[in-house]
Amino acid sequence: MRIEGLTHSPSPKHHFASDNNSPVHASVLDAIVSANRGHTLAYGDDYYTERAVARIKQTFGAACEPFFVFTGTSANVLSLAALTRSYHSVICAESAHLNGAECGAPEKFTGVKLIGLRSDTGKITVADIEACLGHEGDQHHNQPKVVSLTQATDFGLCYTADEIGAISEFAHRHDLYVHMDGARIYTACAALGRSLKAMTTDVGLDVLSLGGTKNGLLGAEAVLFFKPELARDFKHIRKQGMQLASKMRFLAVQMEALLSDDLWLTNARHANLMAKTLAAELTRIPGIRITREVQTNMVYCTLPRQNIDVIREAYLFYVFDETQSEVRLVTSYDTTEADVQGFVEVATAALAAEG
Amino acid sequence: MRIEGLTHSPSPKHHFASDNNSPVHASVLDAIVSANRGHTLAYGDDYYTERAVARIKQTFGAACEPFFVFTGTSANVLSLAALTRSYHSVICAESAHLNGAECGAPEKFTGVKLIGLRSDTGKITVADIEACLGHEGDQHHNQPKVVSLTQATDFGLCYTADEIGAISEFAHRHDLYVHMDGARIYTACAALGRSLKAMTTDVGLDVLSLGGTKNGLLGAEAVLFFKPELARDFKHIRKQGMQLASKMRFLAVQMEALLSDDLWLTNARHANLMAKTLAAELTRIPGIRITREVQTNMVYCTLPRQNIDVIREAYLFYVFDETQSEVRLVTSYDTTEADVQGFVEVATAALAAEG
Amino acid sequence: MRIEGLTHSPSPKHHFASDNNSPVHASVLDAIVSANRGHTLAYGDDYYTERAVARIKQTFGAACEPFFVFTGTSANVLSLAALTRSYHSVICAESAHLNGAECGAPEKFTGVKLIGLRSDTGKITVADIEACLGHEGDQHHNQPKVVSLTQATDFGLCYTADEIGAISEFAHRHDLYVHMDGARIYTACAALGRSLKAMTTDVGLDVLSLGGTKNGLLGAEAVLFFKPELARDFKHIRKQGMQLASKMRFLAVQMEALLSDDLWLTNARHANLMAKTLAAELTRIPGIRITREVQTNMVYCTLPRQNIDVIREAYLFYVFDETQSEVRLVTSYDTTEADVQGFVEVATAALAAEG
Amino acid sequence: MRIEGLTHSPSPKHHFASDNNSPVHASVLDAIVSANRGHTLAYGDDYYTERAVARIKQTFGAACEPFFVFTGTSANVLSLAALTRSYHSVICAESAHLNGAECGAPEKFTGVKLIGLRSDTGKITVADIEACLGHEGDQHHNQPKVVSLTQATDFGLCYTADEIGAISEFAHRHDLYVHMDGARIYTACAALGRSLKAMTTDVGLDVLSLGGTKNGLLGAEAVLFFKPELARDFKHIRKQGMQLASKMRFLAVQMEALLSDDLWLTNARHANLMAKTLAAELTRIPGIRITREVQTNMVYCTLPRQNIDVIREAYLFYVFDETQSEVRLVTSYDTTEADVQGFVEVATAALAAEG
Repeated sequence: MRIEGLTHSPSPKHHFASDNNSPVHASVLDAIVSANRGHTLAYGDDYYTERAVARIKQTFGAACEPFFVFTGTSANVLSLAALTRSYHSVICAESAHLNGAECGAPEKFTGVKLIGLRSDTGKITVADIEACLGHEGDQHHNQPKVVSLTQATDFGLCYTADEIGAISEFAHRHDLYVHMDGARIYTACAALGRSLKAMTTDVGLDVLSLGGTKNGLLGAEAVLFFKPELARDFKHIRKQGMQLASKMRFLAVQMEALLSDDLWLTNARHANLMAKTLAAELTRIPGIRITREVQTNMVYCTLPRQNIDVIREAYLFYVFDETQSEVRLVTSYDTTEADVQGFVEVATAALAAEG
Repeated sequence: MRIEGLTHSPSPKHHFASDNNSPVHASVLDAIVSANRGHTLAYGDDYYTERAVARIKQTFGAACEPFFVFTGTSANVLSLAALTRSYHSVICAESAHLNGAECGAPEKFTGVKLIGLRSDTGKITVADIEACLGHEGDQHHNQPKVVSLTQATDFGLCYTADEIGAISEFAHRHDLYVHMDGARIYTACAALGRSLKAMTTDVGLDVLSLGGTKNGLLGAEAVLFFKPELARDFKHIRKQGMQLASKMRFLAVQMEALLSDDLWLTNARHANLMAKTLAAELTRIPGIRITREVQTNMVYCTLPRQNIDVIREAYLFYVFDETQSEVRLVTSYDTTEADVQGFVEVATAALAAEG
Repeated sequence: MRIEGLTHSPSPKHHFASDNNSPVHASVLDAIVSANRGHTLAYGDDYYTERAVARIKQTFGAACEPFFVFTGTSANVLSLAALTRSYHSVICAESAHLNGAECGAPEKFTGVKLIGLRSDTGKITVADIEACLGHEGDQHHNQPKVVSLTQATDFGLCYTADEIGAISEFAHRHDLYVHMDGARIYTACAALGRSLKAMTTDVGLDVLSLGGTKNGLLGAEAVLFFKPELARDFKHIRKQGMQLASKMRFLAVQMEALLSDDLWLTNARHANLMAKTLAAELTRIPGIRITREVQTNMVYCTLPRQNIDVIREAYLFYVFDETQSEVRLVTSYDTTEADVQGFVEVATAALAAEG
Repeated sequence: MRIEGLTHSPSPKHHFASDNNSPVHASVLDAIVSANRGHTLAYGDDYYTERAVARIKQTFGAACEPFFVFTGTSANVLSLAALTRSYHSVICAESAHLNGAECGAPEKFTGVKLIGLRSDTGKITVADIEACLGHEGDQHHNQPKVVSLTQATDFGLCYTADEIGAISEFAHRHDLYVHMDGARIYTACAALGRSLKAMTTDVGLDVLSLGGTKNGLLGAEAVLFFKPELARDFKHIRKQGMQLASKMRFLAVQMEALLSDDLWLTNARHANLMAKTLAAELTRIPGIRITREVQTNMVYCTLPRQNIDVIREAYLFYVFDETQSEVRLVTSYDTTEADVQGFVEVATAALAAEG
């Protein structure tokens, strides 16, 4: 079939718009193809899912209980559903994906109120959390029940193990659970040189939204419970939350592939390296200012307003803050040095032409 | 990595348990692989999604508005969300998947009440629907707003075009929308020898849950609106419903492949033929009784209680009604004649041994 | 001010339409007036509420935890909210008020599925409940969690203490809670000659919706928890459920008045007696047939279709089943013998004229 | 019955804690008593409700559609339910009652996200609202749909008619509805010397939560729709929202009494006068600082931390901001000059003793 009049072009490219735009890693696609043999029981009661669960337990510790879901939004929302009743509230950064970029999915599905704390880094502190307390038992107020941390944050910055540990310790002392939105946990662990277990299980998390799609998967995320009793009814929450995959094996093997042979680490390290390289190059261009520390795979910088369009013709990216002319450049596991050099050249030329 | 102690076996087999258990059709997997090139915009604003949408419009008519989602449950629930407010009710068969097999996802997400009508065939009639009316404007009662038809039904039976047309006509006259759960619409169209458009667009449907996963896809379904105004805010409903895929292209190309080169029809016809063959063979075995008409890819029959386990060791299937010892055998696009003969032989031997 | 053109007449009358139509009992109004002195803390932290709670504990046992709410619907819905998560289901009679007459408020607020069991009496049995079980742990199915009994039923019939005890015993053995919709518990206790405690606390109930408005209150109901741990967060559920009265004292003193000096019993006995009298008289009229046993304050009978309008001009009542020409006559604490005789005379005359 | 061991005292007092603590105005109680004659149809289809509706239309204009509810929280939540779908957002002040003091009832019932704007006065401006726009059609973001204004604000300050008119004009131009939380609209109108109609109907409001309980009612509020099409299904929303009163007449006559003979105005003017007087007196006491303009019935002032307890022994009030030692004093329709003088004397003595 030929279809006339399509707007979009099929020509493959690399961009700096989002790690969501990247293709599936070859090893992950291989894993899908390998699992495509014969009938298996649907809904997760199959060999491949069992194998992937075993891999996750090897990675995060035997006590964790993993559940596969389709999206990061659902991993977050269903995690909160497991931890809360509707009169609870969830403390998070104002910039957290679940607060600003999920079209109210958490409120809709769980009924809770999100308390979005302002933070330039996207990180919140024990002091921030403590300031939200004080209405315990007041029937007029939502009762705080969960602290949700985004790792790495939407600004690409990382909580250290000590910071998470301190938050967990404080939270548990105040009868709060700790959830982590780990859509980009891989780049954080790569940047910090720590294992996935060291940054989750070992620092007191209760529940983790384990990402995947932003690190080379076709589309698979997981919810990991570190205290089995919290997972007790989660299969019903997942099904009622419309996130039970019938051909579960194809979610499972994606995650298994990512956690095998350190693929997650290789991918994340590369993305981080490309971001560092990009930032270093951009620093040298007069008229461009790196606006936030580059710890993982995001570079925030200002670009002269009048140059943005011409650069975007070559490499797609998003403007983060119109008022400051601040843009966000995201690298991915498949970003190449040529992409970085290409971007730098286009930007250099654009700004020079301007001058 | 070797993982010890797995319960499930990896050896590939064919079963009669569910069309959900089947693998991905080779053409579909090819389509996924072909789309895995370079970066594309996430969330559906890409070349592949545009192409798949065009294919759907070619199939169902230019006026339809399709949205891809992950699961059949979500296609149903989000369809209802688009058509209702929480004080509405939805008229369906008691056996409908959305009523009995979605763990309350419709009630949870939309707040509506489902009115499940008893029906031995899974089909409901204009008279059934009419009997639910009569409380219009009564503030104490949920207000009927949607009729949901399952095609083919959970018993494998088909609504004819005339039946759907009559229901649509009645429904619209009474200010009701008509939704179709088309998780298995393909086998119905194949059985009836009608096009997809003839059984949906042309008979007055408002919204269709278009299946895919049960007919050879890895995991992709779609919601199709036949009246564009109903789709106006659906992108927000989908996102808030946790069903917005970031790497949308990989859902889109699956559906495109299914609708290309009549793959849907080839697959469905084959599954139907295998069911017919299986039923014909089983009829000949003394002690087995076909309990429901076989129109599509499901065979319901009684098996002597004491023979069930031994047959299930060779070919997995589900007992539908314990009290009647009635079982359900589902064929799939990849069921082979050898599977059918194998099953018949095992069953024959089992029942003979019994005698 | 004179207001022109009102449709309704202010002339006071007694009717047989509903015990909701009756005025406030004089003692209850006196209690309201008496409580109207000075400022008290809002939201229940006041002398009058404390006194009413003490009265309830005297009546139902010291362990119960009562919470006042505005309506019977909210007492039911918030009871269920305290006992369930959204993936649960609630087993009740199809005729139960919460299933058919609350516009889907239970589904909307709690997300649960109601399983409405057919029953000519409105009563459900252990066998009925048992038939709903069997899907424990199946992720596709709502999980039964609550049995809700309506006492007296919507047909005016009573569960005995033994019946409730047997249901409680069975339910608790299967990890189900037992809730009672006691909107008309008073007429049931009066009919059975048992105390309120004997029919609730002592037979194993977990939660009671304690009525009031149908037995002479202006508008006050209560949710009573018989196991304090179930009440732990209920104040938040009540507030989030929009049922926290600011001037709580005026709800509290109504319930206190009803439970003082056996007012509840006097009212209920009288209503029951009027129903018995009415039924006895109607039995004598050729052409009228009592269709259901009269145990409390409801008389169901057939009336010739052509006589209904003329009788309704004198005494309002509702047709229950159009197809059978079956009507429902409800007596109230303020129904007089003259009302009964008047109705009988009008009916006699109407049917005679017909002859 | 004597009940031992009650914590609270029955001795009547006046306080400055809240206008919710005040008793029912005598005229309102008279209206309730007068309506307590005979049977009337339940649920609002009665003479008294019809009469009250007529009175409301006289007050606010014939086009308005009023619905009675029990609480201010429910008036707010159900108003929003009528105006929104769950993917919408509601723009309000951070201090708005619906944002901070309703235990998440809006989120729970409607699913929307509240956008709480910081404001020292509790008032929001066109510029504030404009800053929330800009994500129209972005599927990741809740879509702003309602602006909710609190009149008077939780700090006792008033929007002028011009301010409301400008907000309405802007809102409607941007496809937003304007809702007013008028729990204390009476004191605002009294302060501004404007009619209720002038401050609502005439300045473009779409929906009003009309208070009552804070201005002398026992417990009755109303939702008023100024565009009838918005009210079309509201009776179902109200019932499903558990706010349909069975003995509706007793809500209706309260509101009718408040709107008759300018009772609302007399009450509100008096409360405002008492607040002005109190503020004027407190200004004279060294060590006390009035912290916010006193426009209606609230006085915010600092009190030395060490004096608060002794003053609260005589007159109850709440500390608003612990860190600033700022307290809130609320006057009511029944606050007397003696109360004001008494408070001033106690405060003077307490602070002098301190010195």
